[in-house]
Amino acid sequence: MRAAYVTEPGPPDAIRYGELPLPATGPTDVLVRVRAVAVDPVDALVRSGAYRTPIPAPFVIGRDLVGEVAATGPGAVGFTPGQAVWCNSLGHGGRQGSFAEYATVAADRLYPAPPDVDPEELVAAAHPAATAWLALFRHGRLRAGQTVYVGGAAGNVGSAAVALANAAGARVVATARPDDFDRVRAWGAADVYDYHGTDLPERLRTAAPDGYHVHLDTSGHGQPAVAVPLLAHGGRMVLMAGLHDIVGLPVGALYTRDARIVGFAISNATTADLATAATAVPHLLRTTTWRPRVTDRLPLSEAAHAHRLLADASVRGRIVLRP
Amino acid sequence: MRAAYVTEPGPPDAIRYGELPLPATGPTDVLVRVRAVAVDPVDALVRSGAYRTPIPAPFVIGRDLVGEVAATGPGAVGFTPGQAVWCNSLGHGGRQGSFAEYATVAADRLYPAPPDVDPEELVAAAHPAATAWLALFRHGRLRAGQTVYVGGAAGNVGSAAVALANAAGARVVATARPDDFDRVRAWGAADVYDYHGTDLPERLRTAAPDGYHVHLDTSGHGQPAVAVPLLAHGGRMVLMAGLHDIVGLPVGALYTRDARIVGFAISNATTADLATAATAVPHLLRTTTWRPRVTDRLPLSEAAHAHRLLADASVRGRIVLRP
Repeated sequence: MRAAYVTEPGPPDAIRYGELPLPATGPTDVLVRVRAVAVDPVDALVRSGAYRTPIPAPFVIGRDLVGEVAATGPGAVGFTPGQAVWCNSLGHGGRQGSFAEYATVAADRLYPAPPDVDPEELVAAAHPAATAWLALFRHGRLRAGQTVYVGGAAGNVGSAAVALANAAGARVVATARPDDFDRVRAWGAADVYDYHGTDLPERLRTAAPDGYHVHLDTSGHGQPAVAVPLLAHGGRMVLMAGLHDIVGLPVGALYTRDARIVGFAISNATTADLATAATAVPHLLRTTTWRPRVTDRLPLSEAAHAHRLLADASVRGRIVLRP
Repeated sequence: MRAAYVTEPGPPDAIRYGELPLPATGPTDVLVRVRAVAVDPVDALVRSGAYRTPIPAPFVIGRDLVGEVAATGPGAVGFTPGQAVWCNSLGHGGRQGSFAEYATVAADRLYPAPPDVDPEELVAAAHPAATAWLALFRHGRLRAGQTVYVGGAAGNVGSAAVALANAAGARVVATARPDDFDRVRAWGAADVYDYHGTDLPERLRTAAPDGYHVHLDTSGHGQPAVAVPLLAHGGRMVLMAGLHDIVGLPVGALYTRDARIVGFAISNATTADLATAATAVPHLLRTTTWRPRVTDRLPLSEAAHAHRLLADASVRGRIVLRP
């Protein structure tokens, strides 16, 4: 089969595209014929070695796929050949990745793809929407009637967070660039402010006088010094990006309101948590106007080019590749 | 009755000692004849106005007491005149304090004092031991078989935390001054290191190669930059002191291990949480060798002097006052 892989961690140019043997399929695995994959920022961190996780050699990159069941192990119950499926947790923790014509997926990491959801939108949504779901509900414990701040609300994870929080009955106060205000409101934000506004803390305070139950900044530039004093009693600031950042934490503002800073990486998620998040992703595409912003659709042979685009930081949407 | 009170927030010299009317007793309240009180650092923060909380005027200071039931409201079930009782949550949130001959305590904030526990040790233990219990178990979610770091392990809260964690089946790694090593070990620490040792992070890593499930620094000088990289996957750093500190938070070390920083103030604790902690305090005095270090026993008329001693920061133990 054709695959995009590295022989050892390195820059985008280390990605090769060529023949690899079909992967073995264990007793509770499913062999999937890959129809499309998406490129995630964390793929680049794994490829470069910045995010430390066990990887085989040669290592097929990528964590997301959508495709059809090609073969099943005898214990991979519930899957049948030809069935449309998707996955968002390959390519780390010792598992081979998704950037190939075929991929082996453990049955508990594979989900049915509903026929009424566009497969390429599904694979583009898989990582950001599942990340947003875990951030808001698993780690942030957001509930209906609560107020959530979403920073970077026009981004991939941020926009999904706005739509998911709104659909769950929470009130969303967001920041974005003024160009994106209309879209952020359309996804369900009650208020949107300019991230670069000098009076932003005061505006955010006025927008939620009783404080934010959850603060989610998807930009990787979350600032506890601003966020924590705006939290409600018992509020949660969720941190999920900013690998090399050291930020100032105002200790008194944290402990006097029984607040917490909750860190998480989707790479650590249990299969149970991933499966719960996976029920939310197609539901979001079916029941809201939110869609992932697919900016490029390329052949899988362009995987190295796609990783270079990502490294430019000029990509504001999702890149989908087709084997 | 005689009471120590302030007419408005201010320095220790603002504390007056004189006659105030007996407090009213509501239908679910208990009037307690106070036998002894203890001075808490947070008492000084409330008295000075640094910790903002509603207080009546004139305001009787102090949150802890031990005494006997003098009278009960008709709905204060379970209490009878003459019964020995204690409390650790007066003097904030709109409630009058404990530094008086009599105090009114809501029945759900009052606990029976066992006859086999010394009353002055109980009142001296009330605040630090309840704080340590809430930090370890309510907010830190410490379990038997886990490893906990306790900083400031010879202090009031720290020493109680060592004894409580050890009694709950956790492994305790502590820091203290070398003079205190023997006592910290006697309370149950498996390892004790010099807080000022230059190689402390490396020693702490070696002492818990799989990481700390809970990190509790009671000194008010907790350093997430050191603590977070030493946490286990899903570990909790509990912050409960350092009102005006801004400390550096290493974002990547937090989120890549699904760790969290949990802030809490005992002043925010629910009556249910306080009551659960209150079962642990006499149990600790009955079943372990840990005792609060009572450094001064003074008449209540010396309340202003006691607050001046506390402000000196030279007090390493507990001050007990007697009306």
